[in-house]
Amino acid sequence: MSHSLEKIMASARQVSRAYRIEQGRNFRLKQISPGDTGGGVKNVVDIQWQAKTFLEFANARLTELQEKLYAQKHWSLLIVLQAMDAAGKDGTIKHVMSGINPQGCEVTSFKVPSGAELTHTFLWRCAQRVPGSGMIGIFNRSHYEDVLAPRIHPEFLQAHNLPPPLVTKNIWQERYEDINAFEQHLARNGVLILKFYLHVSKEEQKRRLLERINEKNKNWKFSEADLRERALWDRYMEAYEEAIRATAKPWAPWYVVPADNKWFTRAIVAVTVIDALEALYLKRPKVSGEIKKALLAARRSLKDEG
Amino acid sequence: MSHSLEKIMASARQVSRAYRIEQGRNFRLKQISPGDTGGGVKNVVDIQWQAKTFLEFANARLTELQEKLYAQKHWSLLIVLQAMDAAGKDGTIKHVMSGINPQGCEVTSFKVPSGAELTHTFLWRCAQRVPGSGMIGIFNRSHYEDVLAPRIHPEFLQAHNLPPPLVTKNIWQERYEDINAFEQHLARNGVLILKFYLHVSKEEQKRRLLERINEKNKNWKFSEADLRERALWDRYMEAYEEAIRATAKPWAPWYVVPADNKWFTRAIVAVTVIDALEALYLKRPKVSGEIKKALLAARRSLKDEG
Repeated sequence: MSHSLEKIMASARQVSRAYRIEQGRNFRLKQISPGDTGGGVKNVVDIQWQAKTFLEFANARLTELQEKLYAQKHWSLLIVLQAMDAAGKDGTIKHVMSGINPQGCEVTSFKVPSGAELTHTFLWRCAQRVPGSGMIGIFNRSHYEDVLAPRIHPEFLQAHNLPPPLVTKNIWQERYEDINAFEQHLARNGVLILKFYLHVSKEEQKRRLLERINEKNKNWKFSEADLRERALWDRYMEAYEEAIRATAKPWAPWYVVPADNKWFTRAIVAVTVIDALEALYLKRPKVSGEIKKALLAARRSLKDEG
Repeated sequence: MSHSLEKIMASARQVSRAYRIEQGRNFRLKQISPGDTGGGVKNVVDIQWQAKTFLEFANARLTELQEKLYAQKHWSLLIVLQAMDAAGKDGTIKHVMSGINPQGCEVTSFKVPSGAELTHTFLWRCAQRVPGSGMIGIFNRSHYEDVLAPRIHPEFLQAHNLPPPLVTKNIWQERYEDINAFEQHLARNGVLILKFYLHVSKEEQKRRLLERINEKNKNWKFSEADLRERALWDRYMEAYEEAIRATAKPWAPWYVVPADNKWFTRAIVAVTVIDALEALYLKRPKVSGEIKKALLAARRSLKDEG
């Protein structure tokens, strides 16, 4: 028996909150299994049987919220997506955000830093792309890359050409501090921050990479670099765990979302965004008596044109 | 008897350090008199009699340091200039920085925020203009305007359209914290920060504003708004004092430079910048044996062209 979409949504909210980390101190990555699909919570497993319908339902809700966000222009929403390769970042953006008015949504994919970017601090390029009020901004990879990849590849850090006396063993701790202060500054000024780590298993990644190799129209997604990074899996997991522990804050929580099942990841991300936006009590700006009068006058004037 | 320029420079360094505030807690604006010209320190008063020669001497030193900064590309220098109208910000930039290669120096004058700027946090537009490594960046007004003008003109704060629950009585304290964290992040990544408050007296401002009115080719500099802000002098002094107390840090000190005498202000700012850059031990990058070999090969190849 299929439950109503509204009931499934309510259950999915409950599951999403279980993946929310807002005090990192005691967090361990192994607390959340990549294969989890909501386990004990009633109704959630029903998403799988009607994944498409549920996502359409969620999309419609999201579209409505985005319109209010855009009209009110008090808040903005910053979604940070981090994950190992093939964990589903691109697919999540595509399936969760399709339907939204692109005028109110900007996706930035952060790649290997350019020459100009390397002359600036690691937060510089990300700070520029933070969404303005009324907007949704999605970071497909983000400033978190700068506490992940360069830890494992010291040459990435060297590329910044920092003054040698400033590169000490405290550098990662300093970067965490700077990230926390940066995100707190955004939160204090109306940026709602949701950070997602899509938690895929090494086995599932293998399956998906093979798919990219074996299926012709997925070939373009494959990169040899993915294998190189895969070989460093355990070190990445350590770096992710440490980063999440250091930067999960009430004003910028991490959501560690199991990512071995795409239908589940997408549903949880969608519901998390809806849940957070609904908590803002978004409203289209109130129309004052004065503006109502102006509207009536404008109608008269347009009609009188004949 | 005129002392050697080198001796005057040494004395001026000593004076500059007396104006440096790097722990704001006990600072009071009245500790430094706008009319001060180095008082007790030997030789400094001699700058006045040979102001032009001394500034040329300082310019040459600065030009040399800037070339090394640019070649080494480890550090950058951010100069923040704040002051009441007619205190001498523009003149200081012109007289201290003329001679420097403009390719290595960017001046940003921050005016009334644009519509797009108002949709972002107050640090957004300033963060973008922070100089990259090797560069000198000058902020003619800066993010400090956002803890000055909107305190006195609440409508400037309203223009940001922040979510009402976020606008509390803590907002200025939060902004100080965010500024400190932002500047610390820059300092940790190789940005040398020097913040100048050009400390002019109300009487001297009156004299200079009258000059702008009476002298035809200074008329373009006059703005009616200057008088409006002048009427709020005491409130601005309070806001400046509080801002300096809250944001003077070892990694981003304030220099409160007496500004009733232009020759003195300019000399002190020039010497402060020189003093700070010299402490970095800037060097052109070392040429390795490999590069030397490449240079010789290139010379041969060019000669062989015939």
